[in-house]
Amino acid sequence: MKLALIGVGLIGGSAAAAWRAAGEAKRVVGYDVDAGAAERGRALGVLDVAARSIAEAVAGADVVLVAVPVLAMRAVFGQIARHAPAHALITDVGSTKTSVMEAARAALTGEASLRRFVPGHPIAGRELPGVDHADAQLFRGKLVITTPSANTAPEAVARVEALWQRAGARVARMECAEHDRIFAAVSHLPHLLAFALVASIASEADGDRKMQFAGAGFRDFTRIAASSPAMWRDVCLANRDALGQELARYRDLLDTLQKAIESGDAVALERTFAVASAARRRHAPTLDAE
Amino acid sequence: MKLALIGVGLIGGSAAAAWRAAGEAKRVVGYDVDAGAAERGRALGVLDVAARSIAEAVAGADVVLVAVPVLAMRAVFGQIARHAPAHALITDVGSTKTSVMEAARAALTGEASLRRFVPGHPIAGRELPGVDHADAQLFRGKLVITTPSANTAPEAVARVEALWQRAGARVARMECAEHDRIFAAVSHLPHLLAFALVASIASEADGDRKMQFAGAGFRDFTRIAASSPAMWRDVCLANRDALGQELARYRDLLDTLQKAIESGDAVALERTFAVASAARRRHAPTLDAE
Repeated sequence: MKLALIGVGLIGGSAAAAWRAAGEAKRVVGYDVDAGAAERGRALGVLDVAARSIAEAVAGADVVLVAVPVLAMRAVFGQIARHAPAHALITDVGSTKTSVMEAARAALTGEASLRRFVPGHPIAGRELPGVDHADAQLFRGKLVITTPSANTAPEAVARVEALWQRAGARVARMECAEHDRIFAAVSHLPHLLAFALVASIASEADGDRKMQFAGAGFRDFTRIAASSPAMWRDVCLANRDALGQELARYRDLLDTLQKAIESGDAVALERTFAVASAARRRHAPTLDAE
Repeated sequence: MKLALIGVGLIGGSAAAAWRAAGEAKRVVGYDVDAGAAERGRALGVLDVAARSIAEAVAGADVVLVAVPVLAMRAVFGQIARHAPAHALITDVGSTKTSVMEAARAALTGEASLRRFVPGHPIAGRELPGVDHADAQLFRGKLVITTPSANTAPEAVARVEALWQRAGARVARMECAEHDRIFAAVSHLPHLLAFALVASIASEADGDRKMQFAGAGFRDFTRIAASSPAMWRDVCLANRDALGQELARYRDLLDTLQKAIESGDAVALERTFAVASAARRRHAPTLDAE
């Protein structure tokens, strides 16, 4: 197949590399709003051609993979609808799915392209963004969620899911609203909290000195705080309803814990810590397989 | 030397194992309020003898290592003051130091024992507590903070620091108040936040289902939420002033971020995320060496 990659970053670049390694992508043409990123992708061999426009990238494409921040997708879909061949499958890797479906419904209007759009989300990443860190093995053993709608052609879903399996991933299908509730809790909120912790410490006069003494717990807790600011800005805004609900629950519990600390309520504090510790240990086998 | 270990858990057990492996500890007698923990320590070869009281453990000791939750230290110090030989060095591994110094001042009254007390804090751990996970290599390349006071005998400090170096650790000295400010930010607050996240999700009706879809980001962010509830309950209460200050700053920033999400302020959101991302990447070389 000919793959058009719109957004030449860590995830898109890794997918292109994985599909090329699997013999699926015979030719990869990439476009990025940052021409330097596309050029680095070409130099690294992830792309065959760094296109200068979306129109150029999608010309003759069999599959178009959209790997841009989620709030940029609507404009990208508009370009794809105008310029991609009628047979091209379109898929994405966005971390939110309701907003992406809305963007697709609004923009993928021509040539029944909505039928050929398969929303996807690989649960894989790396804290260092950019095509420079792309890795054909990134999806091996990882989960990819697809959230097809009633409009999506079953053969399009099957083809996109098969592509992810060829990259070594497992595939699970769910409704986009459920996807967004799940990942608000286990991905979007933790990113927000990690960004907030590092930003809070970094803004202290002695923040850098403090971080010099940090150990492995801080290292792991804050790993995701090195992620792409632009990507996560979009995720937080695009999934603001589900994220807002999780954040409200979280802040209520933080209130309770703060009061327990202030009042010296050791029993309440230990009870909550024990709930967390037991749950984290219960899920350790699955998490450690990630 | 003869080592008395009071508190037979992950950290104390690892220190005993490291000092035995280095040829420092010829004989290790341990006491734990949980007799089963001491017995497992003996069965694992970490202890030579599982004592039935602190008095029995410290009889004839050259070094007494206190590795119990920080709020239990005052009572333990009282027993040590009554029963340890006059020459015995006393040190601890507590994650908070001001509260431990207060406990020492109150309880280590006999035989000039306060002069021989060297407060310590190894910045090392593992999310799975208990002597079963003790490891003689745990401190290799890690930092150990000592916070001697004007009362501490210089030769006692030198001996305790040398012991940690024999376990493979680097040593840094600071004031106990500074220690508590630093670790409130880079250790105690992250633990509180991670416990709160897992407890918040676990308390949702579909919390376990949500966690089944979690990826590597959640795995790393929540690793410390599997830590010992009793240990961290004590840390949060013992360092409540410094922790309260960090938590207040953090919650202010979380407020700001929540408002930015609600009002769709992409610029404010990205600005804070970028501060965090840049700081986390700046500290990555040191953190990754942990």
